[in-house]
Amino acid sequence: LTQARMVQIEQDILAKNNRYADENRRYFSERGMLALNLVSSPGSGKTTLLTETISRLKDEYAIGVIEGDQQTARDADRIRATGVPALQINTGKGCHLDAHRVGHALESLDLPQHSLLFIENVGNLVCPSAFDLGEAHKVVILSVTEGEDKPIKYPDMFHAADLMILNKIDLLPHLDFDSAECIRYAKQVNPRIKVLSLSAKTGEGMESWLKWLKAELALQRIEYA
Amino acid sequence: LTQARMVQIEQDILAKNNRYADENRRYFSERGMLALNLVSSPGSGKTTLLTETISRLKDEYAIGVIEGDQQTARDADRIRATGVPALQINTGKGCHLDAHRVGHALESLDLPQHSLLFIENVGNLVCPSAFDLGEAHKVVILSVTEGEDKPIKYPDMFHAADLMILNKIDLLPHLDFDSAECIRYAKQVNPRIKVLSLSAKTGEGMESWLKWLKAELALQRIEYA
Ligand SMILES: Nc1nc2c(ncn2[C@@H]2O[C@H](COP(=O)(O)OP(=O)(O)OP(=O)(O)O)[C@@H](O)[C@H]2O)c(=O)[nH]1
Ligand SMILES: Nc1nc2c(ncn2[C@@H]2O[C@H](COP(=O)(O)OP(=O)(O)OP(=O)(O)O)[C@@H](O)[C@H]2O)c(=O)[nH]1
Ligand SMILES: [Mg+2]
Ligand SMILES: [Mg+2]
Ligand SMILES: [Zn+2]
Ligand SMILES: [Zn+2]
Repeated sequence: LTQARMVQIEQDILAKNNRYADENRRYFSERGMLALNLVSSPGSGKTTLLTETISRLKDEYAIGVIEGDQQTARDADRIRATGVPALQINTGKGCHLDAHRVGHALESLDLPQHSLLFIENVGNLVCPSAFDLGEAHKVVILSVTEGEDKPIKYPDMFHAADLMILNKIDLLPHLDFDSAECIRYAKQVNPRIKVLSLSAKTGEGMESWLKWLKAELALQRIEYA
Repeated sequence: LTQARMVQIEQDILAKNNRYADENRRYFSERGMLALNLVSSPGSGKTTLLTETISRLKDEYAIGVIEGDQQTARDADRIRATGVPALQINTGKGCHLDAHRVGHALESLDLPQHSLLFIENVGNLVCPSAFDLGEAHKVVILSVTEGEDKPIKYPDMFHAADLMILNKIDLLPHLDFDSAECIRYAKQVNPRIKVLSLSAKTGEGMESWLKWLKAELALQRIEYA
């Protein structure tokens, strides 16, 4: 197995994934759906952010969730407890979701027109960055407990994301975390990245995130020529 | 690229890695060195634990560190500031260290007999689990900010580790983290796993970790028949 052969194999995998991602994107576009791919380290608060977001939006929007985890159906169970449909994908040894399995999950979920679809990826700040799932945006969640330097140490993910959510800001009084420095690092690897700070636990800062979601949903519902 | 072919390729990669890991293990054994592979999510406190540990042990033991990160030399710089040698490996797109690159790092570091070698892996709770670096033990660090359920949701890593360190316990008063439940989950996926709780920041609980290191070092220094 030479280095050149490995690169070839990797390119084949990514090319195949991209074809499935394009199919998913067509599916989303036909249904006027907004699909977001939530990526982060394990435990930065993806599922908590989702349940808090869903409870605030579910009366107004049709919402569905695809959950990716190596094992267990805990996250899908937490989502279902809010009353919206969720489909759990267990990746086993796998370290990221791929567009093919997401495509099958879409068939099973069969969400209505104009739905908001959240895809919670496996907690992993490296591997999911290369896999397009057909989403409108990758949203990277960074907990302030992880340190300011994650964007420059794990740059591919922050480069791939359009929005960074700095979560767990309720803990800032107990940490030495410098938010401005962290945001500077994020913009260094991705000058276009937008940043929102919030606490999924206390609800502080949630309002801007909800506004962002509503505006993005509005964009998807426009009947483009 | 069929599923069977993919499995074959994966097995080839792991088999090749295992051969290099065996070489590293021979190297450690010949020099009576203790090599530990520190694995965790991004930002759970690996480097902080290392600098705090090194400052307490460096007068008594020869210590060296191999640092794995996608980008930057920040962690190696932090280690060098304590006065011990460190070698930074940047994995680029790669999501884990492999035994081949660690072998080359060992040559460069050229540590003395009976050294304590820490290998800090790329922050990733999935991929490094499958890659033996020749270490005596994988030590998994879990921050209490990440939630109790990480062991059952990312089971391969907790299965591969011999010791789990629950870090950042200074934050427990501000969280709803149930340590007993987390430890139960860890033992569920790995009944042999040992657990230590500590705060790398305040130093609480460090004493048991230092005792564990000293006992493990003593084991390596025995002249086995
Ligand atoms: N203090 C605080 N804790 C939070 C916040 N958001 C989430 N948490 C806690 O962080 C831990 C992990 O939260 P999850 O929502 O399970 O994180 P996740 O990213 O979905 O985790 P995985 O799916 O396992 O990778 C739990 O203990 C949550 O209660 C927050 O804003 N503030
Ligand atoms: N409160 C508290 N914070 C800690 C503790 N240990 C580490 N931290 C903080 O956690 C953040 C990440 O620490 P690092 O030591 O860089 O973590 P790491 O696992 O080496 O991170 P990567 O190498 O980037 O994956 C920093 O802001 C540290 O100050 C602890 O025991 N308590
Ligand atoms: Mg989750
Ligand atoms: Mg580190
Ligand atoms: Zn991967
Ligand atoms: Zn990987």
